[in-house]
Amino acid sequence: MRLFESKYGYFTPDGREYVIVDPRTPRPWVNVISNGDYSMIASHTGSGYSWRGNAGQNRITRSYQDLIKDSWGKYYYIRDRESGRFWSAGWKPVMAQYSLYEVVHGMGYTIYRHRVEDIYSEMKVFVSAKAPVELAEITLKNEGATSRRLDITSYFEWVLGNFPDEHREFHKLFIVPAFRDNAIFVRKYLGQFPDGKGRWNNTDWNQIAFHGASEPVKSYTCDKESFIGMYGTQERPAALFEDELTGKCDRFGDPCAALQVEMVLVPGQSKSVVFTTGTAIIGEEDPEELLKSHSSVGASRRLFSELKAMWDGLLEAEKVETPDPGLNIMTNYWSKYQAISGRLWGKSGYYQVSAGYGFRDQLQDSQIFLVADPGLMRKQILLHAQHQFREGDVFHWWFTIGGGGPRTGCSDDLLWLPFITSQYVRETLDYGILDEELSFVDGGSATLYEHCRLAIEKSFKRFSPRGLPLIGEHDWNDGMNAVGSDWKGESVWLAQFMYLLLERFLPLSTKRGDGVFADRCRDVMQSLKDAVNEYAWDGEWFIRATKDDGGKIGSKENEEGKIFLNAQTWAVISDITDSERKAIAMDSVGRILLKDFGALLLYPAFTKPAPDIGYITRYAPGLRENGGVYTHAAAWAVWAFALMKDAASAYKAYSGICPPNRSVDIDRYMAEPYVTCGNSDGPVSPMYGRGGWSWYTGSAQWLHKVAVSWILGIRVEDGFMEIDPVIPPHWKGFKYTRKFKETVYEIEVRNPENLSHSVATVTVDGKGGGPKISIVNDGKTHKVVAILGRSKD
Amino acid sequence: MRLFESKYGYFTPDGREYVIVDPRTPRPWVNVISNGDYSMIASHTGSGYSWRGNAGQNRITRSYQDLIKDSWGKYYYIRDRESGRFWSAGWKPVMAQYSLYEVVHGMGYTIYRHRVEDIYSEMKVFVSAKAPVELAEITLKNEGATSRRLDITSYFEWVLGNFPDEHREFHKLFIVPAFRDNAIFVRKYLGQFPDGKGRWNNTDWNQIAFHGASEPVKSYTCDKESFIGMYGTQERPAALFEDELTGKCDRFGDPCAALQVEMVLVPGQSKSVVFTTGTAIIGEEDPEELLKSHSSVGASRRLFSELKAMWDGLLEAEKVETPDPGLNIMTNYWSKYQAISGRLWGKSGYYQVSAGYGFRDQLQDSQIFLVADPGLMRKQILLHAQHQFREGDVFHWWFTIGGGGPRTGCSDDLLWLPFITSQYVRETLDYGILDEELSFVDGGSATLYEHCRLAIEKSFKRFSPRGLPLIGEHDWNDGMNAVGSDWKGESVWLAQFMYLLLERFLPLSTKRGDGVFADRCRDVMQSLKDAVNEYAWDGEWFIRATKDDGGKIGSKENEEGKIFLNAQTWAVISDITDSERKAIAMDSVGRILLKDFGALLLYPAFTKPAPDIGYITRYAPGLRENGGVYTHAAAWAVWAFALMKDAASAYKAYSGICPPNRSVDIDRYMAEPYVTCGNSDGPVSPMYGRGGWSWYTGSAQWLHKVAVSWILGIRVEDGFMEIDPVIPPHWKGFKYTRKFKETVYEIEVRNPENLSHSVATVTVDGKGGGPKISIVNDGKTHKVVAILGRSKD
Repeated sequence: MRLFESKYGYFTPDGREYVIVDPRTPRPWVNVISNGDYSMIASHTGSGYSWRGNAGQNRITRSYQDLIKDSWGKYYYIRDRESGRFWSAGWKPVMAQYSLYEVVHGMGYTIYRHRVEDIYSEMKVFVSAKAPVELAEITLKNEGATSRRLDITSYFEWVLGNFPDEHREFHKLFIVPAFRDNAIFVRKYLGQFPDGKGRWNNTDWNQIAFHGASEPVKSYTCDKESFIGMYGTQERPAALFEDELTGKCDRFGDPCAALQVEMVLVPGQSKSVVFTTGTAIIGEEDPEELLKSHSSVGASRRLFSELKAMWDGLLEAEKVETPDPGLNIMTNYWSKYQAISGRLWGKSGYYQVSAGYGFRDQLQDSQIFLVADPGLMRKQILLHAQHQFREGDVFHWWFTIGGGGPRTGCSDDLLWLPFITSQYVRETLDYGILDEELSFVDGGSATLYEHCRLAIEKSFKRFSPRGLPLIGEHDWNDGMNAVGSDWKGESVWLAQFMYLLLERFLPLSTKRGDGVFADRCRDVMQSLKDAVNEYAWDGEWFIRATKDDGGKIGSKENEEGKIFLNAQTWAVISDITDSERKAIAMDSVGRILLKDFGALLLYPAFTKPAPDIGYITRYAPGLRENGGVYTHAAAWAVWAFALMKDAASAYKAYSGICPPNRSVDIDRYMAEPYVTCGNSDGPVSPMYGRGGWSWYTGSAQWLHKVAVSWILGIRVEDGFMEIDPVIPPHWKGFKYTRKFKETVYEIEVRNPENLSHSVATVTVDGKGGGPKISIVNDGKTHKVVAILGRSKD
Repeated sequence: MRLFESKYGYFTPDGREYVIVDPRTPRPWVNVISNGDYSMIASHTGSGYSWRGNAGQNRITRSYQDLIKDSWGKYYYIRDRESGRFWSAGWKPVMAQYSLYEVVHGMGYTIYRHRVEDIYSEMKVFVSAKAPVELAEITLKNEGATSRRLDITSYFEWVLGNFPDEHREFHKLFIVPAFRDNAIFVRKYLGQFPDGKGRWNNTDWNQIAFHGASEPVKSYTCDKESFIGMYGTQERPAALFEDELTGKCDRFGDPCAALQVEMVLVPGQSKSVVFTTGTAIIGEEDPEELLKSHSSVGASRRLFSELKAMWDGLLEAEKVETPDPGLNIMTNYWSKYQAISGRLWGKSGYYQVSAGYGFRDQLQDSQIFLVADPGLMRKQILLHAQHQFREGDVFHWWFTIGGGGPRTGCSDDLLWLPFITSQYVRETLDYGILDEELSFVDGGSATLYEHCRLAIEKSFKRFSPRGLPLIGEHDWNDGMNAVGSDWKGESVWLAQFMYLLLERFLPLSTKRGDGVFADRCRDVMQSLKDAVNEYAWDGEWFIRATKDDGGKIGSKENEEGKIFLNAQTWAVISDITDSERKAIAMDSVGRILLKDFGALLLYPAFTKPAPDIGYITRYAPGLRENGGVYTHAAAWAVWAFALMKDAASAYKAYSGICPPNRSVDIDRYMAEPYVTCGNSDGPVSPMYGRGGWSWYTGSAQWLHKVAVSWILGIRVEDGFMEIDPVIPPHWKGFKYTRKFKETVYEIEVRNPENLSHSVATVTVDGKGGGPKISIVNDGKTHKVVAILGRSKD
């Protein structure tokens, strides 16, 4: 059964794989494959590139960053030695006439199936689960009637450090390739970090890169010029018109890697060869050993099984079965995979090359680990806390290699530390994390609890005379970067966010006996509530912010940007206002912002730059934060509608941004149907509904979160599991299975009366229970049945 | 007559143009065309890109920086409307079968002649002498027997700000194109500099770019995707398979510019169309007016004449006629053109994109203006002085747009200010420049004289206990960046340079009545002389430097880098040592360093990184400063050999780096035969003799200088002209004509006895004169005859 089939592809029945059947997709549909250390992007066209640790700081192979031409350059050519004709294992670069082309993107791997001139090829690319090595296992099968003599030639360019390598003509001079033992080994005599005395350009790159093959290499070259040919192209490289590669391997050219292996196949015969690419940190890892242990077909098969097992562990701890296959696919597999492989591990996508970790970004993302491995979330929290200054503020982001980052006047980033920490503790009951002693960027250390309190206290110093938090250089929306740089403008969203944060953090303070601070938080909550309700209510919604000059943003008074999404959704999420205003505000969201492809971030879009607001107004109207659907915030709209018990709107808000659903208008959507995009164009754009900046977006985790916690309504808190669905009334029910340590809970929710919310009865293993289920770890499987029903009164 | 003909091209008889006859040159052979404000690179392949003010900070059109693929992308397609077949006005991107392809690089322009399918095309590209506009005048001629319906389609991508546009997927979102009045106008709503409050991403790009045509535009597009086609190429863009361009022109795509004009040509008929590209600074310039005044064939012809006249003014004030056509070509035209158009104006070449002005770099270059327009040198000196700090040190380089730059511990950059200033005053007698009141970077101001003195005084504070100057972070050789960062290591070259500088600056101090400082300089000169001769003599040559640990660099004690060129040439140039040591040192240079393609910078090359020396040791051996010919320093070797009256070595050192001479082994040389390269590979490289980093190199001005002042021996000083040639004995003489203001001196040097130096008699207008000729400005033409002869004693 093919799910969400379009002319370009479909999901396999369980949704765990997406199969592309036409290489001419509207955009490159890629897979970000990572083991948390070594990563690669695999495009459905067969091109891609690799990095280690961080894409921007430590690129291994080169690409050219041209979306339209998708001209990346890690290629495998297949050639018929008799006819001289050649094509490629992927569609790119040769783009030959084919009788089959099919690409399967899966969890941690991509498989390319191609048939040209009676030669069937299958290339499986993946990254070893535990080592900094990628494998490309290529199998050729002779499906013709005559014997064929073939060769396979790999080709890519080296970077070995920063990308973009903007001064290639300089940096290429320091790359030192060598061929030995059937492989190419490459060093770079120019590292990107200063030496012990702070001198730049005085170190080696700290790794050795390598590229090898499981079959004897017939010929090789490390010389781009002789491979491509001066003025040549990757489509028709000079080297493929020669019998053998040149064997040039010195420090005097533009370095590439190309290995050529040969095979003869009688009719019906097939044969596999594995190409390995990777790096070894000098003095810590052994490149020869890494190469040896990964360069065989046997190793490839074994490593692939290990990989599958690793992803099973991360994905299978939770399973949903609902009438909505899109929700199932995304929740069970792709949202988790995207958040982990793309955001937390690979830290890059096609459209954005990361420089490290965003302080609030990967904190939010780390919630994805709550189900399968809370220890990984714990680790992430501790890591972020160590990027805080003693004053309480934090690096807005930091380089994951080499350290450092910008210390900015962003007003919300620091608060995500206590917010996410409290969420973690609520779900795991791991109060011990609060006692972890953690360093500050600028010296000294304190417990995580104190780190969190310092962040809150720092924010307490940034209030307007009216009691609203100052927006500073910007809040959640980085592009509102001119609203309050004089520290006068206020953020209403930040007030709401802070209100919820304090409500959640309070119990931790109380529990620790920090009653003084708890009281302080309670006081601030009250004053926040007063101020928001007194100054921020605009009649039909809450304003978003005020500017340094006191002018409102997101008010009916404005000509453009009259209403902003976050100030309404977070009014509900934070519970900072009364039911009436919540209803009015969310009604405005429903009327004005909620569209077919999700809730718009604001309306109407800015048509001209507003230098007192910031660069969101500089985007084309309808694009990204300027009145487009910004998926991160659009996911929060699902949360808010669910809190309002507005199942129809919640489901509409969810369905519009759930990627598989966009298969029906895929030429409009353009982006991958299996991962969330960062944004999609709003109605004012001529390309309304076009998905942009897929993969590297914080929306993946939230899409998972709102599906599980707010549509299915499964929430874990203080040792209990709550079942509180807000679902479409036509759903007859759904199933949710989740492991807690060694124990499994199989939940079945039934909806015999076509309701959309309100659980009437809950049984655990056949026995009646309260609305909340106490979670035990007895190693058994428990069956929970919840039935929706009308309230008795 | 074709000069220096090779299989790829030749110089025209006067050497002012270079004609390329085969597009498959070993490297892109380009022309850097600039009017000092707006610039472009034109490759012989027909590709190129444009910038304004500074290539790196203000790129107008986009390129992809791939030397081997030369994939730039400013293209003009020619299409037969009947057959649908298309090619391009340059060889790239279509690379069609042709019956003629010829490219002429001239002073300020490049002409492409192409004949495909009986259509002869000629495209002339140049930049207006006075306006920020480039023109491409394309003439098509029907050389076939049937009438032809053709169209021409322009195509390029916009940048509008920083390049490399490393995050294109972000920056493209702010580019706003519009089509009106037969042209495309483009803004960018994201400037690269902070706003008045220091906020980034909150300004507009300060210009409007435009692209128009002199003929009615039949169709157009601003949309790269529909032009190239998703997964398409510039070789075969989707748009050329459609009848018309799409007319897409909005803020929602990846913006390009493409205009299509049509023409019908009967047999024998020809027709011209002009495409204009340029920018207007908002609020200062009028884009419509610039477009209108430049977009006609008449305007193109007139502007081209103006351009020729401008370059005549800069080039024709001096003329040499020697038996060496290479020396003539380079001295009369190309060295000057390269120094002015490439270094001082365009500030970029193919291999290096500049970020502004190097403090010492363009100061040295500015000497090129001494002949034609000393006022421009004056301006450059005053500009550099204003990039000095009150302490006397300077920006190592600075951004020419937006300002700022690195304040480093480079030990020689500051000293080039007094050095070049004294050179300027010696030649022009413009003592008034010393009284110019000029600001410092960090506030306050002082006269130029005081600026110069401050630089010298700052250096006086940086001496070792032995009386040698400390090398600091590095000296002339930036890549010796680890020698002395603890401020202990010494620079011998710097001692020599400083010695000459003080000798030259002294008279200015004395003349100003600053006797105390003059005495101080005299004392330092003596101690420098003592120290260099006591500590730096190595037996057969001078060492180059000592390291922080006291170890020698450039000594027979060393295993690698035993001898460095600069420490020998400047021993002679500075006159810091006695004749015997000069002779021994230069004999070592002749034996060890002087090779067929110039003098090597050091020998033997470093084969492995030496972290206590710096990144020169990280290059491959024989490359650039690591034992290659570094042309800037290799030109100084000519100077030193001439001072030694070693005509054979001086001429060998010159001929080896004089680019036209490399036409005989052009496939080895690879670089352009008409401009100097920054370096060429030393003998230890497998590509010995390969030229690298052409165009943007400080060697162009020095190549001119050593030819005129040290081979021909024409030197101007204190109102006198000296004639002191050091020439090959087989030269029967040479002519040198030079304007001084309204007066012309026609010098003829005769060498009846086949000598290589020593002028015996000089006559001016037939009357006997001393060896030095007093320069007068009487508006007349004076004939000077100098005859070489043996000394009477």
